[in-house]
Amino acid sequence: MPWQPGDPIRDGADYLESLRGRDLDVWLFGKRIAEPVDHPIIRPSINAIAATYDLAVSDPDLASATSELNGKTVNRFLHITGSAADVVSQNKMQRRLGRDTGTCFQRCVGMDAVNALFSLTYDIDAAHGTGYHHRFTTWLAEMQRLNLMVGGAMTDVKGDRSKGPLGQADPDLYLHVSERRDDGVVIRGAKAHQTGAINSHWMLVMPTARLGPEDRDYAIVGALPVEAPGITYIYGRQSSDTRSMEGQLDVGNAQFAGQEALVVFDDVFIPTERVFMDGETEFAAELVERFTSYHRRSYVCKSGVGDVLIGAAALIADYNGVPKASHIRDKLVEMSHLNETIYGLGIAASHESTQRPAGNWEPDPLLANSCKLDVTRYPYELARLAQDLAGGAVVTLPSEQDFDHPDLGPMLEKYFQGRPGVPTRDRVKVFRLIENMTMGRNAVGYLTESLHGAGSPQAQRIVIERGSDIEGKKRLAEKLAGIDEPD
Amino acid sequence: MPWQPGDPIRDGADYLESLRGRDLDVWLFGKRIAEPVDHPIIRPSINAIAATYDLAVSDPDLASATSELNGKTVNRFLHITGSAADVVSQNKMQRRLGRDTGTCFQRCVGMDAVNALFSLTYDIDAAHGTGYHHRFTTWLAEMQRLNLMVGGAMTDVKGDRSKGPLGQADPDLYLHVSERRDDGVVIRGAKAHQTGAINSHWMLVMPTARLGPEDRDYAIVGALPVEAPGITYIYGRQSSDTRSMEGQLDVGNAQFAGQEALVVFDDVFIPTERVFMDGETEFAAELVERFTSYHRRSYVCKSGVGDVLIGAAALIADYNGVPKASHIRDKLVEMSHLNETIYGLGIAASHESTQRPAGNWEPDPLLANSCKLDVTRYPYELARLAQDLAGGAVVTLPSEQDFDHPDLGPMLEKYFQGRPGVPTRDRVKVFRLIENMTMGRNAVGYLTESLHGAGSPQAQRIVIERGSDIEGKKRLAEKLAGIDEPD
Amino acid sequence: MPWQPGDPIRDGADYLESLRGRDLDVWLFGKRIAEPVDHPIIRPSINAIAATYDLAVSDPDLASATSELNGKTVNRFLHITGSAADVVSQNKMQRRLGRDTGTCFQRCVGMDAVNALFSLTYDIDAAHGTGYHHRFTTWLAEMQRLNLMVGGAMTDVKGDRSKGPLGQADPDLYLHVSERRDDGVVIRGAKAHQTGAINSHWMLVMPTARLGPEDRDYAIVGALPVEAPGITYIYGRQSSDTRSMEGQLDVGNAQFAGQEALVVFDDVFIPTERVFMDGETEFAAELVERFTSYHRRSYVCKSGVGDVLIGAAALIADYNGVPKASHIRDKLVEMSHLNETIYGLGIAASHESTQRPAGNWEPDPLLANSCKLDVTRYPYELARLAQDLAGGAVVTLPSEQDFDHPDLGPMLEKYFQGRPGVPTRDRVKVFRLIENMTMGRNAVGYLTESLHGAGSPQAQRIVIERGSDIEGKKRLAEKLAGIDEPD
Amino acid sequence: MPWQPGDPIRDGADYLESLRGRDLDVWLFGKRIAEPVDHPIIRPSINAIAATYDLAVSDPDLASATSELNGKTVNRFLHITGSAADVVSQNKMQRRLGRDTGTCFQRCVGMDAVNALFSLTYDIDAAHGTGYHHRFTTWLAEMQRLNLMVGGAMTDVKGDRSKGPLGQADPDLYLHVSERRDDGVVIRGAKAHQTGAINSHWMLVMPTARLGPEDRDYAIVGALPVEAPGITYIYGRQSSDTRSMEGQLDVGNAQFAGQEALVVFDDVFIPTERVFMDGETEFAAELVERFTSYHRRSYVCKSGVGDVLIGAAALIADYNGVPKASHIRDKLVEMSHLNETIYGLGIAASHESTQRPAGNWEPDPLLANSCKLDVTRYPYELARLAQDLAGGAVVTLPSEQDFDHPDLGPMLEKYFQGRPGVPTRDRVKVFRLIENMTMGRNAVGYLTESLHGAGSPQAQRIVIERGSDIEGKKRLAEKLAGIDEPD
Repeated sequence: MPWQPGDPIRDGADYLESLRGRDLDVWLFGKRIAEPVDHPIIRPSINAIAATYDLAVSDPDLASATSELNGKTVNRFLHITGSAADVVSQNKMQRRLGRDTGTCFQRCVGMDAVNALFSLTYDIDAAHGTGYHHRFTTWLAEMQRLNLMVGGAMTDVKGDRSKGPLGQADPDLYLHVSERRDDGVVIRGAKAHQTGAINSHWMLVMPTARLGPEDRDYAIVGALPVEAPGITYIYGRQSSDTRSMEGQLDVGNAQFAGQEALVVFDDVFIPTERVFMDGETEFAAELVERFTSYHRRSYVCKSGVGDVLIGAAALIADYNGVPKASHIRDKLVEMSHLNETIYGLGIAASHESTQRPAGNWEPDPLLANSCKLDVTRYPYELARLAQDLAGGAVVTLPSEQDFDHPDLGPMLEKYFQGRPGVPTRDRVKVFRLIENMTMGRNAVGYLTESLHGAGSPQAQRIVIERGSDIEGKKRLAEKLAGIDEPD
Repeated sequence: MPWQPGDPIRDGADYLESLRGRDLDVWLFGKRIAEPVDHPIIRPSINAIAATYDLAVSDPDLASATSELNGKTVNRFLHITGSAADVVSQNKMQRRLGRDTGTCFQRCVGMDAVNALFSLTYDIDAAHGTGYHHRFTTWLAEMQRLNLMVGGAMTDVKGDRSKGPLGQADPDLYLHVSERRDDGVVIRGAKAHQTGAINSHWMLVMPTARLGPEDRDYAIVGALPVEAPGITYIYGRQSSDTRSMEGQLDVGNAQFAGQEALVVFDDVFIPTERVFMDGETEFAAELVERFTSYHRRSYVCKSGVGDVLIGAAALIADYNGVPKASHIRDKLVEMSHLNETIYGLGIAASHESTQRPAGNWEPDPLLANSCKLDVTRYPYELARLAQDLAGGAVVTLPSEQDFDHPDLGPMLEKYFQGRPGVPTRDRVKVFRLIENMTMGRNAVGYLTESLHGAGSPQAQRIVIERGSDIEGKKRLAEKLAGIDEPD
Repeated sequence: MPWQPGDPIRDGADYLESLRGRDLDVWLFGKRIAEPVDHPIIRPSINAIAATYDLAVSDPDLASATSELNGKTVNRFLHITGSAADVVSQNKMQRRLGRDTGTCFQRCVGMDAVNALFSLTYDIDAAHGTGYHHRFTTWLAEMQRLNLMVGGAMTDVKGDRSKGPLGQADPDLYLHVSERRDDGVVIRGAKAHQTGAINSHWMLVMPTARLGPEDRDYAIVGALPVEAPGITYIYGRQSSDTRSMEGQLDVGNAQFAGQEALVVFDDVFIPTERVFMDGETEFAAELVERFTSYHRRSYVCKSGVGDVLIGAAALIADYNGVPKASHIRDKLVEMSHLNETIYGLGIAASHESTQRPAGNWEPDPLLANSCKLDVTRYPYELARLAQDLAGGAVVTLPSEQDFDHPDLGPMLEKYFQGRPGVPTRDRVKVFRLIENMTMGRNAVGYLTESLHGAGSPQAQRIVIERGSDIEGKKRLAEKLAGIDEPD
Repeated sequence: MPWQPGDPIRDGADYLESLRGRDLDVWLFGKRIAEPVDHPIIRPSINAIAATYDLAVSDPDLASATSELNGKTVNRFLHITGSAADVVSQNKMQRRLGRDTGTCFQRCVGMDAVNALFSLTYDIDAAHGTGYHHRFTTWLAEMQRLNLMVGGAMTDVKGDRSKGPLGQADPDLYLHVSERRDDGVVIRGAKAHQTGAINSHWMLVMPTARLGPEDRDYAIVGALPVEAPGITYIYGRQSSDTRSMEGQLDVGNAQFAGQEALVVFDDVFIPTERVFMDGETEFAAELVERFTSYHRRSYVCKSGVGDVLIGAAALIADYNGVPKASHIRDKLVEMSHLNETIYGLGIAASHESTQRPAGNWEPDPLLANSCKLDVTRYPYELARLAQDLAGGAVVTLPSEQDFDHPDLGPMLEKYFQGRPGVPTRDRVKVFRLIENMTMGRNAVGYLTESLHGAGSPQAQRIVIERGSDIEGKKRLAEKLAGIDEPD
């Protein structure tokens, strides 16, 4: 039975269907894209999210859970964590999806945002007597029921980084309330690097930074459908993005890719029942911290992507005829070691979750930030090692059209062959996959997003500094050194 | 009530008492040591173990557990893990003891050995119809009842590393059965780098390597009291060990240190009821793997020691008057980050434990080995950074006698002062603690043991290679690259 | 006076003219390219070489020299080194051109090849009484006179890496003599990753590996014009290469790029007077070593490219308003440090040149290989740090067409602004430059070519092992350890 | 003919003789040392300097030079560099002495100080019309004639690092002029970590930091004999220092070691003719920079020490029977690579020397500081790798007395044997040498001194930042990005 608007989404096919026919204001290469689902650059990013729907069907233990809100089975990406085991399961699902797609599947931001807001709205209510938590869970229950894709919009464009929201030349450089009405608020500004924004059904806008009392209009959290009037989406280019418009061979990973967009809010209305914070500035930093405690260990997805890259590197060594050379095996071990280090820190953070008064479980911030800080380093070294194992052809191969040419094709088949028994085109496909992941479309997600997604390295260092209890450690050293405790 | 022979050991004081008056054949500096407990070089290593007894009293949740064997509360170091949470608790106890002692507290080898043997004896019985498991649990129950310190003797001296046991110039270079009697076996050989051997009550001898069918006599596991006739203990020197005989100031950490010894078995008898493997060569590699799955993530103790070093580095920066300099804070963050990476991987391995048919829980080998491989690197970098923050005085300070000299003392007090308000001697103590941990007595445990304890880095790489499922990862890459599956 | 065929090339403009109207068999995207000079993808690679001509005019001390062959001033890229200072000057010229172009200017292979062959032909003649050296210098003098671009074709396609030339399924997988005629030889095979091949006037084919006596037909060195009948050039794709066909803004570096091609030799004739080695297999490894002694330290060009990347990173920090943040300054220092380490090792290798009996000077192989091994690592870390300083926009910016759109343009100008006073488009340009160098067209040259050009890392390690005199170092250790010398 | 006071020193034996019978106020372990030459802890440090004398005899090209002052052959350590080749020769001599001694030979500080002061005094005279340069060269000529050992005393004890000289609680925490007399000045304060101070004949006191006009009394440079009244030397302890008093086997390197001391100046007189700067505060930073340009690349000596450690690591792998294992060879290559990186940067800095108006040649500061910054990192990694190759016995071996014991000795000989044919004691000697260099006496020089000698890492970073011309690099990036030059 085909999916109809208003139906819950059952699988990837439904999800694709659900994205069709929306009248979004999406721009790419200076043109409005009538139907993103059919655009060859956009489609792979949609496929990656579709995989999150299909996995819940094919492996429900891994990718679905029982909602505390309504007792129903829901997609894990929409689930509020009810135990440390739930938090760990997120990581295992993320690694699996990284392995299956080789890219960013874009649904973690929403998962991490709803979990952070679940406890935050609860705590704001406790502090201020507001009614955010009920509003939030009401909305979330509907998301769960319909199995929708929720994006989380946090990163403001920020302008001059030496100044806060009020110090900017233009007040819109941080998203803010531009008007208050009886029935809701109007917001204005833009969010940059919005992962999967165009592929979402709803998005949660949230502040990006610690705010002071004077920043009241910037302390706004709310949910809004992606079709809300006044929103413009401008697609972010990726390295080698147009190869997705060319053919199959040169793209490396024809099926899957990530998506980032600039989202501009030109006086967009949010009705009161979907406002989950408004002016409680002292909770802004708290929100960022809770969200990043989840989101920084969500980057274990990169260990799944790393699995693909390790496999590709091993494959090319095999195709080259030298899978057993000691230096090659040693590099593969190093890649695995770094990859497992990322994974181990992520699941440690998840296992060490603690429960919030609201009832949900939240990862350990020190371990989560240590995980992310490793993610800002190791994928780059994995990429370097993969290129090392691949050899120079990873960046010097002729084009698909040359391989398809009646005269050139046989020449290329002959001269790019590896060990006997390996079709030359298979070898080419692996080179292109490695190129895709180390300096092509999916390098965006595997490398640069690993650096800056969920906050740049310096942001992790600040949390690590705060969490490392230097004063307590000084006491340990004093004691062992035989120094009398200071009075 | 003072401890009497035959009494269970209640605390550190009892433990010290229990070591007195044994007639061990212990040698240090060419002399037989009548009473190791009172020897100034040996005593700090005993103190470190005493801390494991005292912690079980002061923090029973952390350092004790309920035995599955008898339902009694036992020291966690003697406990068979009954859940993944139990395995994790070992790590938390280890970090705590690393923090409290700043050194190797020597009791993990036994803990990890009894857990490995618990399942191994069960599985050998299943395969061969032997009765090892009951023998083993009988013996272990007695260890638990008396709360004894058990050492684990695995590392053979090995001679020519290019050859196995039977290829050696001397058959004794791997420990082996030299005679079989009706009532037991006689063993011969030596075990090197035996951590805490002299401070143990009992030891478990175990093979160190994969064995072939021809190596039958080398496939021996058994328990024997440290006083068994025929055993000689020769104390291993440590960097700056004699400072423990000099005074208080220059030793850095006056109270605690590690211990390594060569243990020579000159035809030592083990009665049948304490033989837990004899000739089942195909289980030798299995034993090493199970033991190292526990033991390689036991090295999270080094994150506890790292806490002390981070504290010392922060303290000296503070005493120098520059605790807020950005490059100093940044180095402390880096130290914390590396330290938490070790910790995170260890507890990830523990959390991801799986249950053996025997009932005990065993850490994930891939994560455990990844943890240990990081341990072979990061403490060295932490040590370098600590020395960076300390400055050159860490290796150029005059001696305690100079500080005590009536004329020199005031001169040194004047010229080694740091920021106002810090007693010069406190500053000296911190320098000496850092020296102790980075190139003195406790550098042995913090650095070199981190490299080679539980197996050298290459051993970890081999397990990582085996566990990284390269073939499965190749399939992932093939699928994303669009390569048809090989038939 | 416009350049005419047969005239010496005076400058970059002449050089461009000299490339026009050649009837080369060049293929790109499955199409034969009638005039490469005017192709938007190819042209930037030609511009980079043109810079080598112009520099000789604008800074003759740096980029020209006096030929030993004829006493004339010649372009340094064609000069035989007459002193260690000459070798050093090559490096300084290379860094300068890296700074000026931000990419690979492709002329070093030829420079290093003519220097290696100068001494090699001399030494073959001495060993075999052949007349190669005179042939070679005669040819070289003509290259110098006309100031031509010479490419060096060394890297065979290699097929199964576990086998040598004769073990391959197809004998053509290493270039070889397919026929011997009275007046010359006919060669067959292909050379991969040929830097600047299409932009050359002549090329030198050379064997790529150590050869045995049985490999006689593979031991061929000769010079041939790029127009020689039977040669096909198939252009190598680069990450984001088609952006050069789009416009100015998204390409990052609109003016300059590198070039790699597969060059197929389908029975190509080389007359005897331009054969410089034929069958002297024992000199093949020697040729590779001499060539790589020059070529591996030629990679100091990457420190010039690194200068650009450091500048770009500093610029974006400045545009972001935070040029003075301590962690930003610290990362810039780290980038500079790594960059200078590359440079320092290269010029050390050059300064420590020794003179060959033929009279030319050749870099120290141990230092040259150490330089290259650092080049296989540090540019990747510089790229990571540059992306760190840039922030996520480096991979999420909308397209040029969006910036040019009448409605979107102002929106993007508003939301991508940095600190006041910086035009938004300038900020975009710097992001795009960093993208270009770290995962776009020029990442090919800055990263992957740094890994594999002049031989992959393992090749450097082999030379370092050979050059590190381990036996001599063992003697040093024995002496200080007090070990009597072995008899 | 035995050396007599007043004779020029010809060789190491003369040098030892020249140190006897001085009435120095030297303290070690709270005792005044009547004759340092015969003290077993001090003697190895004297031997290391003696090697500098003997090398000038055995290899005069390397270790001597012709003085510009008097045309005589002088020890290179006292020579003013007359060419870039001279500067390079210093490095080659330093590597050689590192190889021969495995430690710090202490004579570089003086060499680098006289070269820095040669040009500095010249430039002060030019600025102020003073007569320092003539005074200085007169004194230096006498040093050269007598071939004396000159120490350079720069590092003040500094107290509170957040404050300069005048901000300290005690004015003596930086060395300063405490009284001015008609015939000279009286100085007061202390210098810490004074390398080879007690083994010197003369020392040069110099300020340690940038000074302001108010710091006039701290801007003092002068030469004074080590016997000058009022000087006290307090010996700095080293890790495992007392092993030098025990025997031969456990010390690792019985013959050679470094030396650091605190030198206290309790109102010490310097006559006017040996004052080379007095109050010209604006030249203090300049002096530090010139001195460190020499001294930071002098740390190539550590590549000589590294040669010994590489040899020791290779030797132990050989003794263990596994010299050809791929992972072992790979680690040796990595050690060599890092070691050559240090060396290459040092000699690059030296080769790139420029001439001062005074006539001497001075290394390139950017490369010299890059060299030193690598020295603060790589020896630690070499030490880690050496311990990796050695195995745990490097820190667990029994004592020499145990090996000498009639019963234990044979037991230890048996159980610590390696591959057949290697005497067990030779194996022990290599373990002890590695221990000595990585956590014993010579680890002080090889590791911690590599960090802090010639200034801590942060000091190098500051010079690198200053020298890296960030503004110029921004221009490069702007040009390639197509940004119009700012007006």
